This record gives sequence, C-alpha cells and structure tokens, in this order.
Amino acid sequence: MLWSNYFIPTQKENPSDAKIPSHQLMIRSGMIKQESAGIYSWLPLGLKVLKNIENIIREEQVRAGAIEILMPTLQSSDLWNESGRYDGYGEEMLRVTDRHSRVLIYGPTNEEQVTEIFRKYIKSYKNLPLNLFHIQWKFRDEIRPRFGVMRGREFLMKDSYSFDLNEVSAKVSYNKMFVAYLKTFQRLGLKAIPVSAESGPIGGNLSHEFSIIAPTGESEIFCDKNLLDIDINKKDYISDEEISEVVEEYLKFYSATDEKHDSEKFNSMVKNGEPNIWKRN
Amino acid sequence: MLWSNYFIPTQKENPSDAKIPSHQLMIRSGMIKQESAGIYSWLPLGLKVLKNIENIIREEQVRAGAIEILMPTLQSSDLWNESGRYDGYGEEMLRVTDRHSRVLIYGPTNEEQVTEIFRKYIKSYKNLPLNLFHIQWKFRDEIRPRFGVMRGREFLMKDSYSFDLNEVSAKVSYNKMFVAYLKTFQRLGLKAIPVSAESGPIGGNLSHEFSIIAPTGESEIFCDKNLLDIDINKKDYISDEEISEVVEEYLKFYSATDEKHDSEKFNSMVKNGEPNIWKRN
Repeated sequence: MLWSNYFIPTQKENPSDAKIPSHQLMIRSGMIKQESAGIYSWLPLGLKVLKNIENIIREEQVRAGAIEILMPTLQSSDLWNESGRYDGYGEEMLRVTDRHSRVLIYGPTNEEQVTEIFRKYIKSYKNLPLNLFHIQWKFRDEIRPRFGVMRGREFLMKDSYSFDLNEVSAKVSYNKMFVAYLKTFQRLGLKAIPVSAESGPIGGNLSHEFSIIAPTGESEIFCDKNLLDIDINKKDYISDEEISEVVEEYLKFYSATDEKHDSEKFNSMVKNGEPNIWKRN
Repeated sequence: MLWSNYFIPTQKENPSDAKIPSHQLMIRSGMIKQESAGIYSWLPLGLKVLKNIENIIREEQVRAGAIEILMPTLQSSDLWNESGRYDGYGEEMLRVTDRHSRVLIYGPTNEEQVTEIFRKYIKSYKNLPLNLFHIQWKFRDEIRPRFGVMRGREFLMKDSYSFDLNEVSAKVSYNKMFVAYLKTFQRLGLKAIPVSAESGPIGGNLSHEFSIIAPTGESEIFCDKNLLDIDINKKDYISDEEISEVVEEYLKFYSATDEKHDSEKFNSMVKNGEPNIWKRN
C-alpha cells in the first residue's frame, strides 16, 4: 500500500504535554492520539505495534501452559462486595450505574471474576493445575495520568490467574510465569530485571515486578549487577525442575524495589561494592 | 494439548434462560459464561471462534481498502454534546463520571470520535478517500438483553467510517463495503441478504442491513427470491466499476425490512407471486 493511501499522521513538533521521549515519539510518528486524560486512540502504526506486542505475550503465555479466555470489561459489583474489595479499591475503580440501577465496575483487574469462573466449573482436583489468562482493556482512574500510554487510564493488560492444589504446585506455576515474563521481555528487546516487590492490593506473599531501567523512571530498584548477565536466551522450557533452576539462578542475587529494600541484606549479598541503584519504570 | 489439560466446561442440561439453540449450544459446549445480563465471558473454545470471525472480518475490510485503527471504549461526552447526540441517544448509552467529575460514555458507536480524528489530521483532499475501521468492545444498555451473545449489552463490533470528497466517491466507498460484507458472510458460511433499511439514529440516506434468515428472528424482511441465487463467490475485487456492477446486480431485486416495505413496489417488482416473507435476525 502506498504511503499516500495509508494513514500515518506524523508531526514535526513535540506536543507540549509530552514530557518523555517515548510519549513524544509515539505522537510524532502518528502512532497514538490522546482522546481524554490517559485515554488514547491507536492509529494504524501504533495498532500494528500493539498487536505485535500482544502476540508475543500471548505466544509466551501459551508456551508456559496458560489458557486464554476473555472476560468482559464491565463486571457486576456483587463479586467485589463478596470479596470485600469493593470499598477497599478506592477511587481508582470506575463505578457505573446501568439503566436498571445495578452497579457495574470497569474492571481494574479480574481476580473476582476468574475465581467465579473457577468456582462454577472446576469440580475435581484432576482439573488442576489451571492457569487462565486474558488480554483485555482495563480501567484505573489514575489521579494523574502521564507519559502517554505508559501510565494511562484505559490500557490493555495481560493478566494470568493460576489455580493449584498445594503450595508446591503453586510455586511451579509461579516459576513458569517468571520465565515466561523474562522470555517475553527478551523477545521485545528489553532487559527486564525481576525485583522482589510488595503484592499491593492484589495480595499474596510471593511477588516480583519486572523492571526496565530508564532515565525517566519514577522509582528506584536495588540489585546485584550480576543479575544483568544471566542470559535467558540459553534457557528453554523443558521440565518443571529446569524452570525452577532458572528461577533459582535469578533469586540468588539481591534485587528489590525501594519499598522492599533491606540495606543490611543488600550489603551482605552484594560483593562488588557498587551502589547498584537504578531508576526504573 | 490433552483435553484433560484444557478448559472446555461442557454441560448436558440446557440452561433454563437460554431460549434459542445458538444460545443453548454455546453454553452447553462451554464457549461462553454469562457474567451479568447481556455480559459474557468467552471461554477458550468460544474465544477461538470469536477470534476466527474477527480475523475474517478484518481480512475482508483490509481487502476492501479500509485501514484499521483502535479507538478506546470510553469517550469524553464533549464530542457527543458537540454533535447533539448526547441527549438524543437515550438510556442505551452508558454514562460514567470519573474521579474528577468528568462525564465519560462507554461508546455505543464511534462517529463522533472518528470524525474528531479526521478533523485533527486530514488537511488535504489528497488524503481522500479514507476508510477507517476498528474492532472494539461496545456497550449498549439494551432494556432486555436476550439470545446470549446475539443481543448482549457488551459486544465486539466492527465499525467502518468512510470519508470522501463527493457523493460519487462516497458511493464507491459504500459499494466496497457492500461487497466486503457479502464476502465476509459467505466466508462465515452464512447466506446474507442485503435489505434496504432505515438508517436509525446513525443517520445517512443510504443504508442496508445484511440479514440472515432464522426461525428465531424477531422481524420480517420482504425480498425477491432471485436475490438468493446470486453467487458472490464468482465476484472478486478488481475495479470500482466491477464492484459497482456487483452491487447493481443485487439492487435490481426488491428487498426491504418491514419498516421500509412498500407493497405496491413489491408487487410490481416481484414477478413469481410467492410471498417472500422471511423472519430474520
């Protein structure tokens, strides 16, 4: 197709509200158009990139044994009342009242809904482990949306939910996702650093964030430089044991968000004496 | 993948609220799960079917020269106030207020938003014709959702918007979509009948619905049986003229919704004397 028949509205000027290069370049190359604060249209070029990223994520999820479903964007508030998170989630959750005065919420996440699917259909331990994922638009009413699509309000998110019979099996499922995330970022050309993190409102006692070092980051991570030298390319999915070994190789090095940072542990685990403080997004 | 490792929750019983075979079979084969009235989760099997249909639609749109974008599900109410449709759209439109007390609407359709995209970027007649389409979740707050995903509230819709320099060119764009729709339905194994229709709240003076004859239909169409014998398989996209000839071949036969039905015209155009009254969906 000829460029003149296509639709890539480039512009020369940096938009005044775009503070960081990724946001500026996405606007200038005609990939996205802002519609409201933190809400964007994806123009043809941006949509192609979005779909490519989505497909890489999907392939790595499926390769790790996760099964794709698609839950709706709007959820009944009933499940959130049952879980006790309806009031706790705060102003980030968008609440809507329909014509019959029933309260719906625009899903910021899907633990309640996927658990209801599990509760309805799974009747035997033979159906475990089960890992369901979906790639769906979410809405979180950020008080200060910024950095273009990086911290938007309506955003496309992949979320996986694993169900296991016991803690050992849950750890296996966790490890599979851990490696899948590393593989996904590697295929995207990004060096992701797994960092011990707080679980936040989602809950759970085992949690990692996968951080990308960027000069525009808003928080810091503390990690051992040796972590950066592990080559995930060499690791492939073979057995649960081998996946576990890959994860252990990462976990033996210190790595934490600033919230989880422990100076004493850091000093005893990191030998080379360099500060290893990074900004990340 | 083994069936036992997959997730296809079949059931033997027809759910009591599923009145028509398509709804019953989609539930029984584990394709969908109802979440709220007219809101469904797509389970793995259903999602595969949905994606297949989506891909066929996309391919035929692209083949007809349309360019894919993706507008968000939530829109600012400002554009709807400007177009004058904010108050007119009625209770089917879901209105939401965000944390900063700004009114958003969950898009039931996207004329306003796509026109704003056009207004912002298209500065020259040389960029025309332009046909932008997207495949995105819509919400229409149906007072009585029914028939499973056939008349749901949250549903995936393909919508195309063509922009042309004059009426002749607009007709060419219309004809391309006309043939693309016939091809799409044909690839889906469905016999679609183009029927003259009222434009409804969308507006415009040229409008066709593509109807499928079904015993569960809720309205009737009137058409000449000869319309059913036209073989769209034999027609391919070559020139605008040839596409126009295909459309003309359809339009020479009588075909109308019950709202647009004209008995006198019907009697003079349909020669074989058969009633040709069909229920459709």
